[in-house]
Amino acid sequence: MPEPLDAIDLTARLIRCPSVTPQDGGALGLLEAELTAAGFACTRVDRNETVNLFARWGAKGANRSFGFNGHTDVVPPGDAADWRFDPFSGALADGKLWGRGACDMKSGVAAFVAAAVDFVRETPPDGAVVLAITGDEEGDATDGTVALLDWMQAEGERMTHCLVGEPTCPSVMGEMIKNGRRGSMTAKIEARGVQGHAAYPHRAKNPLPALVRLLDRLASHELDQGNALFDPSTLALTTIDTGNPATNVIPALARATLNIRFNDLHSGASLSQWLHDQAAQVQAETGIELGLTIKISGESFVTEPGDFTDMVANAVEAECGIRPVLSTSGGTSDARFVKNHCPVVEFGLVGQSMHKVDEHVETAHIGQLKAVYRRILDQYFAG
Amino acid sequence: MPEPLDAIDLTARLIRCPSVTPQDGGALGLLEAELTAAGFACTRVDRNETVNLFARWGAKGANRSFGFNGHTDVVPPGDAADWRFDPFSGALADGKLWGRGACDMKSGVAAFVAAAVDFVRETPPDGAVVLAITGDEEGDATDGTVALLDWMQAEGERMTHCLVGEPTCPSVMGEMIKNGRRGSMTAKIEARGVQGHAAYPHRAKNPLPALVRLLDRLASHELDQGNALFDPSTLALTTIDTGNPATNVIPALARATLNIRFNDLHSGASLSQWLHDQAAQVQAETGIELGLTIKISGESFVTEPGDFTDMVANAVEAECGIRPVLSTSGGTSDARFVKNHCPVVEFGLVGQSMHKVDEHVETAHIGQLKAVYRRILDQYFAG
Repeated sequence: MPEPLDAIDLTARLIRCPSVTPQDGGALGLLEAELTAAGFACTRVDRNETVNLFARWGAKGANRSFGFNGHTDVVPPGDAADWRFDPFSGALADGKLWGRGACDMKSGVAAFVAAAVDFVRETPPDGAVVLAITGDEEGDATDGTVALLDWMQAEGERMTHCLVGEPTCPSVMGEMIKNGRRGSMTAKIEARGVQGHAAYPHRAKNPLPALVRLLDRLASHELDQGNALFDPSTLALTTIDTGNPATNVIPALARATLNIRFNDLHSGASLSQWLHDQAAQVQAETGIELGLTIKISGESFVTEPGDFTDMVANAVEAECGIRPVLSTSGGTSDARFVKNHCPVVEFGLVGQSMHKVDEHVETAHIGQLKAVYRRILDQYFAG
Repeated sequence: MPEPLDAIDLTARLIRCPSVTPQDGGALGLLEAELTAAGFACTRVDRNETVNLFARWGAKGANRSFGFNGHTDVVPPGDAADWRFDPFSGALADGKLWGRGACDMKSGVAAFVAAAVDFVRETPPDGAVVLAITGDEEGDATDGTVALLDWMQAEGERMTHCLVGEPTCPSVMGEMIKNGRRGSMTAKIEARGVQGHAAYPHRAKNPLPALVRLLDRLASHELDQGNALFDPSTLALTTIDTGNPATNVIPALARATLNIRFNDLHSGASLSQWLHDQAAQVQAETGIELGLTIKISGESFVTEPGDFTDMVANAVEAECGIRPVLSTSGGTSDARFVKNHCPVVEFGLVGQSMHKVDEHVETAHIGQLKAVYRRILDQYFAG
């Protein structure tokens, strides 16, 4: 019997793959090697420029096919000089692993890969263990988990239940399971005017005052106050760009992007209408053309509490010593795609440092997470 | 008696000097040779990397010392392939001279140099004619006319009145004299928050809502309605930049720049205070750090209408057949420095093609401009 697969070491090796979306940086190849060695049948399901890995131990289409889903891509680190350690070095210090993806979610992937490998080696189940791992969750996600699910559908591959290993705990390991998600949409706004000299503004049409007026109204608006299942919806301005280096020139064009996370009090369609109405209002006031390009990444959804959520909660409580709450808070995840295939919940690490400078993970938490996942597999196939 | 100095030919020779700031391209040497031949005492007043030429005919510190100020440097031509003629060829076609600087302002310099040379040769005055010509008006202007004036002060050199030969006419030759200018200042705003995930805005501090709120307030504010001497002050947002490509990341930093052209109802100091107050207010409301870096390029100034402006207006009307209006509109110029030394007005060509591709000047206008300047000299020393 081989040694158990070390999830902490595997996390560090994954961090050292510079897999900023859409780059793979060698991450999926590393996982494929480990999984193949443990008897998983691996298939690369790349689509367009996106890399994806499907791995199955056991029979295709088995009536018990437990799935894990996650991603190896990461958001850009920003200026590496701002980091305590190089963001792709996977440094170990103070009982923590440091680097981009340490928290979101190379540790989660490493934990379920290690749990699955140990599980099929030590107690080969009557059924299948399926891993659907994508290299594009942080980007457009159009050819990531969606491509994996499309391919599985076409090939007769199956997951009967799925756990997504995203960070789910706000501050204490084990405190929260996600049984649903808010919807997410992105709007790109283009404000178009007429270039001119800053000393003669009446001869130009400056798009920037119209753009900041619209953005101020959008950012100041309270979308709702949440409800029993969901937190309040939120709107975040993420970038405004002009690229005009000349301080005496009024620019012709400016662009902005915003992201909305919305609960079931809204839909992608209702929010699109609101954005269009607000833009039309400012366009009428200013005469500046305000174009909108909206992409709805996912509508809100919920997995109703029941046996599946109870099983996951029991495993978390046994390993972490805390009874997790069910929540639909936070961001979107690929669970929004998986929920069309089978029941899905999410459980993972404390997410506090995700997407930030000095992203890190407690190594002890990686061990706990692997144990939770292993306990879920044991329970699922023992039942 | 030598022939009169041909201002059109001199303009063409100056255009053929590729004097893009801070390059001289031989322009000042060409002028120095013409002026020395006519009995002017010439001094190169170069400072740091900037070239400048001071020339005086007559006694230093004379009680009547009429000055001309102008620049030989030009803005970059951009892609020469976009031009009808090579921008440094000084081509003559359709009754026009073509090339970078044809309008702004090699023709103006050629016209006042030719007028001054003819004048001192034909009717040597009781007094001095002073020319202060810089090679850095289009750039930072820190070592251009300012250096000439510093040197004049130190040497006991003097101008009792000065005419700046910048283009001043919006569309018809002779229609406008500038007897003042609005002030100009640039403010760079840096909004600093804390990076984070767009789905967890409560864990990040997004600088963009604070920035757009501040910018909307600044751009919506009416600074004044102008007065008898000045147009309304204007504020132009010129750029907003974040550079965040990830739609699910809240950025840590965003920058914006704005330019204010202000009349004598304000000062650089009063507007700086206003900007600081507005930024502090939004900072207090949002908790986002809003830093300001302000550069005051020049305060507003006015040369009160009177004998001097009347004399210039009479000369323009006599040569151009149109009574010029006095105006303080438009951009800044080196008159903002000269006004600290002596009364100053500006008169020159139609400025429509300045800084553009296919910049050009009507040759007939160069002749008129030289005649206007000559008439001013005749009148000034006849009085």
